[in-house]
Amino acid sequence: MSSPKTVQEKIWTAGLVIIGDEILSGRTHDKNIGQIATWLQVQGIRLAEVRVVADDEDKIVAAVNALRAENDYLFTTGGIGPTHDDITVDAVAKALGVDVVIHPEARSILEGYYEGRGGLNEGRLRMARVPDGAELIRNKKSGAPGIRHGNIFVMAGVPHIAAGMLDALTGELEGGAPLLSETVGCWTAESEIADLLREVEEAHEGCQIGSYPFFREGRVGANFVVRSTDAETVKSAVDSLTDGLATNGLDFTPGGI
Amino acid sequence: MSSPKTVQEKIWTAGLVIIGDEILSGRTHDKNIGQIATWLQVQGIRLAEVRVVADDEDKIVAAVNALRAENDYLFTTGGIGPTHDDITVDAVAKALGVDVVIHPEARSILEGYYEGRGGLNEGRLRMARVPDGAELIRNKKSGAPGIRHGNIFVMAGVPHIAAGMLDALTGELEGGAPLLSETVGCWTAESEIADLLREVEEAHEGCQIGSYPFFREGRVGANFVVRSTDAETVKSAVDSLTDGLATNGLDFTPGGI
Repeated sequence: MSSPKTVQEKIWTAGLVIIGDEILSGRTHDKNIGQIATWLQVQGIRLAEVRVVADDEDKIVAAVNALRAENDYLFTTGGIGPTHDDITVDAVAKALGVDVVIHPEARSILEGYYEGRGGLNEGRLRMARVPDGAELIRNKKSGAPGIRHGNIFVMAGVPHIAAGMLDALTGELEGGAPLLSETVGCWTAESEIADLLREVEEAHEGCQIGSYPFFREGRVGANFVVRSTDAETVKSAVDSLTDGLATNGLDFTPGGI
Repeated sequence: MSSPKTVQEKIWTAGLVIIGDEILSGRTHDKNIGQIATWLQVQGIRLAEVRVVADDEDKIVAAVNALRAENDYLFTTGGIGPTHDDITVDAVAKALGVDVVIHPEARSILEGYYEGRGGLNEGRLRMARVPDGAELIRNKKSGAPGIRHGNIFVMAGVPHIAAGMLDALTGELEGGAPLLSETVGCWTAESEIADLLREVEEAHEGCQIGSYPFFREGRVGANFVVRSTDAETVKSAVDSLTDGLATNGLDFTPGGI
């Protein structure tokens, strides 16, 4: 019943380096992993790994170099503001082996933005510094732009500013077929049907089934998320899964609980 | 005015590996980074790096080995349930070069928990598997225990269960002096006072100042967080910072805005 085998398409991946002592201290809860992961899915790119590192040049350089070697794209968030603890640009330049230069267009944007707000000072001018060879990612929310250098994207840590930068990049990156998913919810302990999940996954090549248990209204349940880049595979796996749940006398909720 | 130099105390650090396709797909927002970071601070341990990796044995092994080599402690969350995608125990055992065994006490706990809930099956028994040589971390919220193997702590991904395991570990880990912090808020663009922040930090050894800008009520502001393990250093740096803000004609809010 399976359709003819097609050549496996390239899977595009991205790494993400989150720079910020404030995340590692527990002071600030990260919101960028979620929004970047979701945005990447729509571009047909999978987020393959995230590293959260301190505001420490050596740590940032190591993480940037490790994740750019393993992935098609690398994103960073945080550390591009005007203060002394904002060292991302220097670290990325070091990782790339290029100088830090003032980007003339970024300087001009900042001059315009701070006109009537006290003008450019040394701290604000820091936000025009880029690794040599970079272009800008426009940011409508505040003056300071993000930075693109080849397949590296250096973005703000403040989530709504990072979101504006993602908007500016939408449709700009080459990706593959988006990962499709369908969710089935069931009021059962996942441990009841572990065998069924494994069997359905094994029977459908290129399909992954994630099991996400929860405790709600005093009962245990789980959502099962079936993922594949192929719509037929998702549909066939969901059918097998729901047939199996029914055979076990379990009700299920398409779309999840 | 400074007190005599004391020998630099050891700074204890921890790494955290978060295992979960559901975080990388954007489906689930991580809550474990924040709660583990905050808990570690109280134990006098700094969270030095976090890696979020997929449900992939090689990726988990690489992250576990990298972060345990660099830190005093290593925590993992996720992937210890009963289903086929729960492979953390196997990956940690592989990283340590030990076998996976059934822990008799874990088996007994699970037998008790599932009595009257359908009994132990193959999936549920998976939750009694541990890397050889491990002891258990008790979990009052559900049957399945966490796992301790030397300085490695393998915990649940579901945040309230992970929280229960942290409770069980409170006071059990050797740490150093807790990192102290004091926050000062100010309705100013951080770019206005970047020089002041850098000068105050440089004048106080062992002190870090983080600057966290925000936009609220249509105005820009920032919270400045002064951190050190030494209470005198924090106080002196905060005094210098608030004097500097006052000199610049800026009001400030002790404790942050």
